[in-house]
Amino acid sequence: MKRTKIKDVLLRTDYGSDVNVRGWVRTKRGSKAVSFIALNDGSTIKNVQIVADNERFDEDLMKLITTGACISATGELVQSIGSGQNVEIQAKEIEVLGTCPADYPMQKKGQSFEYMRQYAHLRIRTNTFGAVFRIRHNMAIAIHQFFHDKGFYYFHTPLITASDCEGAGEMFQVTTKNLYDLKKDENGQIIYSDDFFGKMTSLTVSGQLEGELGATGLGQIYTFGPTFRAENSNTPRHLAEFWMIEPEVCFIDLVELMDLEEEFIKYCVKWALEHCKDDLEFLNKMIDKGLIERLESVVNTDFVRLPYTEGIKILEKAIADGRKFEFPVSWGTDLASEHERYLVEEHFKKPVIMIDYPKEIKAFYMKQNEDGKTVQGTDVLFPQIGEIIGGSIREADYEKLTARIEELNIPMKDMWWYLDTRKYGSCPHGGFGLGFERLILFVTGMQNIRDVIPFPRTPKTADF
Amino acid sequence: MKRTKIKDVLLRTDYGSDVNVRGWVRTKRGSKAVSFIALNDGSTIKNVQIVADNERFDEDLMKLITTGACISATGELVQSIGSGQNVEIQAKEIEVLGTCPADYPMQKKGQSFEYMRQYAHLRIRTNTFGAVFRIRHNMAIAIHQFFHDKGFYYFHTPLITASDCEGAGEMFQVTTKNLYDLKKDENGQIIYSDDFFGKMTSLTVSGQLEGELGATGLGQIYTFGPTFRAENSNTPRHLAEFWMIEPEVCFIDLVELMDLEEEFIKYCVKWALEHCKDDLEFLNKMIDKGLIERLESVVNTDFVRLPYTEGIKILEKAIADGRKFEFPVSWGTDLASEHERYLVEEHFKKPVIMIDYPKEIKAFYMKQNEDGKTVQGTDVLFPQIGEIIGGSIREADYEKLTARIEELNIPMKDMWWYLDTRKYGSCPHGGFGLGFERLILFVTGMQNIRDVIPFPRTPKTADF
Repeated sequence: MKRTKIKDVLLRTDYGSDVNVRGWVRTKRGSKAVSFIALNDGSTIKNVQIVADNERFDEDLMKLITTGACISATGELVQSIGSGQNVEIQAKEIEVLGTCPADYPMQKKGQSFEYMRQYAHLRIRTNTFGAVFRIRHNMAIAIHQFFHDKGFYYFHTPLITASDCEGAGEMFQVTTKNLYDLKKDENGQIIYSDDFFGKMTSLTVSGQLEGELGATGLGQIYTFGPTFRAENSNTPRHLAEFWMIEPEVCFIDLVELMDLEEEFIKYCVKWALEHCKDDLEFLNKMIDKGLIERLESVVNTDFVRLPYTEGIKILEKAIADGRKFEFPVSWGTDLASEHERYLVEEHFKKPVIMIDYPKEIKAFYMKQNEDGKTVQGTDVLFPQIGEIIGGSIREADYEKLTARIEELNIPMKDMWWYLDTRKYGSCPHGGFGLGFERLILFVTGMQNIRDVIPFPRTPKTADF
Repeated sequence: MKRTKIKDVLLRTDYGSDVNVRGWVRTKRGSKAVSFIALNDGSTIKNVQIVADNERFDEDLMKLITTGACISATGELVQSIGSGQNVEIQAKEIEVLGTCPADYPMQKKGQSFEYMRQYAHLRIRTNTFGAVFRIRHNMAIAIHQFFHDKGFYYFHTPLITASDCEGAGEMFQVTTKNLYDLKKDENGQIIYSDDFFGKMTSLTVSGQLEGELGATGLGQIYTFGPTFRAENSNTPRHLAEFWMIEPEVCFIDLVELMDLEEEFIKYCVKWALEHCKDDLEFLNKMIDKGLIERLESVVNTDFVRLPYTEGIKILEKAIADGRKFEFPVSWGTDLASEHERYLVEEHFKKPVIMIDYPKEIKAFYMKQNEDGKTVQGTDVLFPQIGEIIGGSIREADYEKLTARIEELNIPMKDMWWYLDTRKYGSCPHGGFGLGFERLILFVTGMQNIRDVIPFPRTPKTADF
C-alpha cells in the first residue's frame, strides 16, 4: 500500500479509509489491551496516533516498537477524541522496519541542547530540531522566492579564493601541498607554484566583491552560499562555516536600498508566520514565549531610519540622563551591542536602520557622502539579535575608490578585476549581506547559533 | 524619474509615455542626424533601442556613449519598426553614468570563449554569458521549487569535513596551521591538535552521507551546495569547485527513485523551455542549432529503464554485429563514455536509466540485491552529456552494510554517526546526486564546463 505522509494524513477526513504511514516512534504507551503509538515522519511536528489492539499483534513484535524505532503501519483512519489530533489510525498491520536499541541517545525527553549537539545526527529527529530545520528550509525558500519575483538572479560566487575581501578576518588556507615536503625559495618563502591553483588560496569570507561583478552585468543578483571565518571565537553567535545571502543591485540609491532591506526581512518573517505555523507555535510554547509576538511586531512595524550622528546624540542624551553603559560613546566610535540594543529595544522599541556611518569604521568600498566624513552604509539592527543586515551603496567613482584604497593601504594587486567594474561602464550600485543563521536565530527564538545549523563548525569541532 | 527595466519596457504599449532606462551600451550607430543606441541592462537578452537626435545633445556627451559605457536615458516610448522590437525610446535626456575606455576587453564581437574566460568579470555583460547565467539562475529556482512542492527540506550539509566520503577522490586540505612552523610528534607525524578543528580537515566531495542523516529525521531532504575535487583534470568536463544537488528520501524503493529522477530532470528542462525562451532561442541560434529540439525531446520521452546486465548484452551484440569500441565490454566492467553514448544516442535514441550494477563497481552504501552480485544503483545517462545523475537505494541493513565496509576495508572510525542511522530506527531510503553544471551544460548547449559557472576553479586557476 502506498505510504501517506503524516502531514497529509492529519488533514484527511475520509474516516473508514485504509492508510499506510511510516515513521519513527516517538512514544508508546497503553494498557494491557491496547497500545497507543505516537508516530512522526518529519513531514510535520505533529504525530499521528496509531491505536493497536494488543491481542491482534504478536507480543514479540510489539516489544520492538520502542522510542526511536522505525515502523510501517497500515490501518483504518478513524476520528479521534483523545490524541490531540482529529484523526488516528486503528492498526491492522504493523511492520518494524528498524529497531532501536535501548542505548538510543535521544530516548529521554528534556535533554540539554549541549548534550544533543554531540548527537547532531540524531537530534534532527526531535521536536525542537525538526521545527528549527523545517523553518530553516522555509526561510531559504522564502529568500529565493523574494529575489526571483523581483527579477534578481541567483549568482554563485566562488568559495576558494586567492583574494582577501577587505581583510575581513582570519581565513582558512586551502591547499593540496604535501605538508611533509614543503619547498621554499631562497628567501625561505613557501613556493606555491606547485599548489593546486598555483598560488596561495583560502576560503572566502564574503561573496560581495564577486557579487558586484555579477550585478554589473546582469543588473541585480543575489548570492546564497557558505562563507568562512577562522576566528577562534567560542561564542553562541559565531560559526566558522555559515551561510550568507548577499544581494547586489545596480542603479539603486540609499533610500531604495533601505526599502529593499526592510521589505526583504519582513517578507521572510511573514513567510515564517504563514508557512511554519505549527513549528512556530511549538517553539513559542517550549523555547521562547515572546517569539510569535515579536515576529508579528517586526512585520507590522515601520523600521526607524536613523543617521549614525542622530543615534550618537540619542545615546549621549541617555548617558546625560543617567543611563549607564559599559563602553563609552562618542562620534566616530563603533557602537557596541549594548548601544544598539538600547536604541532598538529601549528607545525606539522597533527595528532601526542606521545609516551614514563615519568612514573610518566602515569598509573601503562604501560610497562616500559629500560631507567627506561619512559613508552610505546601512546596518539593520534588530531586537535580541543586534545587527542582522549590513549593507551599503558602493563607491562607483574610480578615482575616489582608488584614493581610499591607497589611503588604507589595501593590497589590490590581486583585485584588478574589482577596479575594472569602476573603469569600464561604472554604475551606481549597492547591496547588503545577511547572515542566514542570524535570521534563523531570530525566527526560531533559539539562543545558540550551533542549534540552527545541522552540523556546526566551531573551534575544535568538525564532527559529522 | 523612476527607472524601468528593459525587460518590462519591451512589453509596454503605452506609446507616448516617458520612460527612463539605465544600462550598458551594446552598440551605437547612426547618421549625422541621428544616433541609435542599443542598450542592455541584464534583465533580458534583448536590447532596447534609444533614438537620439544628435542636434538635441551635446557632441561631447555623445562621444562618451561608446560600447560598454553605462548610461541613463529618458524619453518617449514610441512604436518601432526597425529596431527588431516593438518599442524604442526617443531620447529627451541622456546621462553618462560611467564611461568606457577604448581598451574595454569585451568591445569586439566574436571573441573566443577561451579569451573571454580571462575576463570572466566582464564576459557576464555579453549576450552568451548573460543567457547562460540567467538560465543557470532559472535552473536553481526550478530545483528549489520542485523539491519544495514535494515537501522536501533544503538541508545544509557541511563543507569542511573530517571524513572522506567513500574515498571519492583527492581532497583539498583546510587548515589554519602556520606552515612555517609545523610541529610533529615522535613518529614524524604532523600534530593537528592545534589546527582550527583539532584534527585534519578537508573540503567535502559530497554531502550525501550527511544528507542521509537529515533524511532519517526530516523524512526527505535535498542539498544544493558546493562540492570540491582536487583532481588535476584539465578537461572541459571537470571543475575543482562545483555545485551539487543531492536529494535523499526515506521509504522510497527503486522504481520510485527512478520515477523521481525522471520527473525531476524533466521538470527542470520544461522550466527552461517555459521560462528562458529568449535566452534559449539565442543559444539555439548561436551555439547549438539542435538545442531546443533536444530539450523538447527529453521532456516528451519516456526514459528507458535498463538493467546493467541487459545493457551489456546489447553492447555485446553490437560488437558481434561489427560495432567497434575503443574499450572492451564484459559483465563486471564499468561502462566507458562511448558505451553509454552508444546505448543512449544510437541504440535507444533516448535517455536511459541504468540500474542493478555489479556491486564491485559501485559505492559501499548501495543496497545489495538478493542475487548477491548486483546493487540498486541508478545512473541516468543523457545524450551528449553522458551520466547526468547517479543515485541508489541505500543499504539500510546494519549487518550487511558493516560487512561490506569491512570487505572493502573502508576506514569508518570517523563515521560512527553514519552507522548510527542503521543502528537506531533504520529505514529504507535512497537518493541521487546531480552535478549542477552538468545540467547547465545540457540545458544551454555550451561545450565547456568553465563557461557555465561564473568564476571557474580549475588547476592553476583561481582568479576573481
